Amino acid sequence: MSTILISDPSLRDGNHAVSHQLTAAQVAAYCAAADQAGIPIVEVGHGNGVGASSLQLGESACPDAEMLRVAREHLKRAKLGIHVIPGFATIERDLVPAIDAGVDLVRVASHCTEADITERHIGYARQRGRAVYGVLMMSHMAPVPVLVEEARKMQSYGAEALVFMDSSGHYLPEDVTERVEALRAGLSIPVGFHGHNNLGMAVANSIAAVRAGATILDGCARGFGAGAGNTQLEVLVAVLHRLGFETGIDLYKLLDAADLAEKQLMKVVPTISSTSIVSGLSGVFSAFSKPVDRAAKQFGVDPRDVFFELGRRRVVAGQEDLIIEVASDLARKSKGEAA
Amino acid sequence: MSTILISDPSLRDGNHAVSHQLTAAQVAAYCAAADQAGIPIVEVGHGNGVGASSLQLGESACPDAEMLRVAREHLKRAKLGIHVIPGFATIERDLVPAIDAGVDLVRVASHCTEADITERHIGYARQRGRAVYGVLMMSHMAPVPVLVEEARKMQSYGAEALVFMDSSGHYLPEDVTERVEALRAGLSIPVGFHGHNNLGMAVANSIAAVRAGATILDGCARGFGAGAGNTQLEVLVAVLHRLGFETGIDLYKLLDAADLAEKQLMKVVPTISSTSIVSGLSGVFSAFSKPVDRAAKQFGVDPRDVFFELGRRRVVAGQEDLIIEVASDLARKSKGEAA
Repeated sequence: MSTILISDPSLRDGNHAVSHQLTAAQVAAYCAAADQAGIPIVEVGHGNGVGASSLQLGESACPDAEMLRVAREHLKRAKLGIHVIPGFATIERDLVPAIDAGVDLVRVASHCTEADITERHIGYARQRGRAVYGVLMMSHMAPVPVLVEEARKMQSYGAEALVFMDSSGHYLPEDVTERVEALRAGLSIPVGFHGHNNLGMAVANSIAAVRAGATILDGCARGFGAGAGNTQLEVLVAVLHRLGFETGIDLYKLLDAADLAEKQLMKVVPTISSTSIVSGLSGVFSAFSKPVDRAAKQFGVDPRDVFFELGRRRVVAGQEDLIIEVASDLARKSKGEAA
Repeated sequence: MSTILISDPSLRDGNHAVSHQLTAAQVAAYCAAADQAGIPIVEVGHGNGVGASSLQLGESACPDAEMLRVAREHLKRAKLGIHVIPGFATIERDLVPAIDAGVDLVRVASHCTEADITERHIGYARQRGRAVYGVLMMSHMAPVPVLVEEARKMQSYGAEALVFMDSSGHYLPEDVTERVEALRAGLSIPVGFHGHNNLGMAVANSIAAVRAGATILDGCARGFGAGAGNTQLEVLVAVLHRLGFETGIDLYKLLDAADLAEKQLMKVVPTISSTSIVSGLSGVFSAFSKPVDRAAKQFGVDPRDVFFELGRRRVVAGQEDLIIEVASDLARKSKGEAA
């Protein structure tokens, strides 16, 4: 059977779940355990990637430079990866020092319809001789042909693999199958999948991905990540091995690493809340739940109706101002209906 | 699209997760919320069903009679169900008063190869004019033709539907598809599926079941149940509705009921621990984890090896004495190899 390349963003996506407060000691402990387990790629950083620490997005407890130094020191066999969103991450301020610090893999990410912004960052990382993946976030918001077109742009810029993210945990397995097949048909580089568990489908979706020919999968220890969490890494690897896929990972040592993550990194293990489900169904960014609750209260409407309406309007991160507008519209409409 | 009948054992399987300490007040609160949401069947009782409260299995905080009285009082639209394992439940002591108390649905359960023991209980409940399902537990331990044969016995005793349980959370979707297809071919009564989430597949397995023609699904609020928990009911219903299946359940009110369950019934929301994964892979009863840990420590072996060896020996609940034997054998073997 084929080999699946596992990339572990526990120390990056997990940082969302603790408001970017992972410490150098936590990074060191988990990197050592992950390395022991034979995890091929370990990604570290602020939840939104290198350079994203800020008042608006949340300030990292551990600065990028320190986190990369500690991770590099404790990863003997594993490759060190970073998540790079152009706009948050600049080449000079963030990418140059990260690569100088020994990053092996640069994953350059954009919203699913904005691949254009990744060209310079991908180019720079390639020029420095690092492995580079293109990453399309919130991929459910692009029609499949658009997703393929955006992916092809990243390939043309030099990306050596393409990972598409189910950032809102919206997909069911057949959605993943369809996208992997389309991406494989449209690209000449490997395809990867990054799942979230809002609808309880993260592992099943990842299996659908590899069965459709994806060869890279992301997963986090205990699903460590915002909201309902990511694909639970140790469950994913157990199921892959049972199905005959190879990962090169030692399952017992991976379970040890996951136990360590639960004890030493996490406040709570992610579970699927009612808000997570609504977020997954509506395809809206989970992090909207607090402002949605506030606006719903203010206008006397159901926050779940606000989520679904935001989904219909295809609202994305950065458009928080629309939440008030939607809540107010719903309130007006419901009064009109009552009159 | 077809209608799926949802049965909710939160107040029965969930009782395992709190050592059978659910109180009458908790039962009342959840029954009222479940009834409001339009859940068709609500199952209550000791984790091992009516009559199972005992020193050995754990004593219920709320006696069967009280729990049934309170549930009956708060279920206006929903049917009241019980889980009945002959041996724990006797007809005279347990089934007669339960039916007198207004139980609508009697689910008579046995280990997957022991349907014989359910004949009298099924017969009695039918004679009293109640709906009766046959339930095969730990169904992964029977080869498919045996499972079908046992199911046919239950049908011949008068069961009006057959539910098979993935008690160790061992199945992947294709395993469920195969069994539903075989059961449908061998039976003339409806087929149902009861999942556990050890391998993160409970929702995906349940969807596989209905796609193969099952028409009854069990699910618990937030997955409330032992170990990795059951199929998470509100996620399941959300996904079923998205796929076009009908359940008659109001999703918002179901989310409210699940929120109430999390706040008022549960100590922790179930998550998938490393032990849950090993239990799911090996197909061994999760509740073995404490004695396995003790025996592994005593003999200086890896508890996960003990689990996998217990799985190979097809050990079932009640055979706890084999745990020591397996741990000791593994210790001897490992010394032999080292010598």
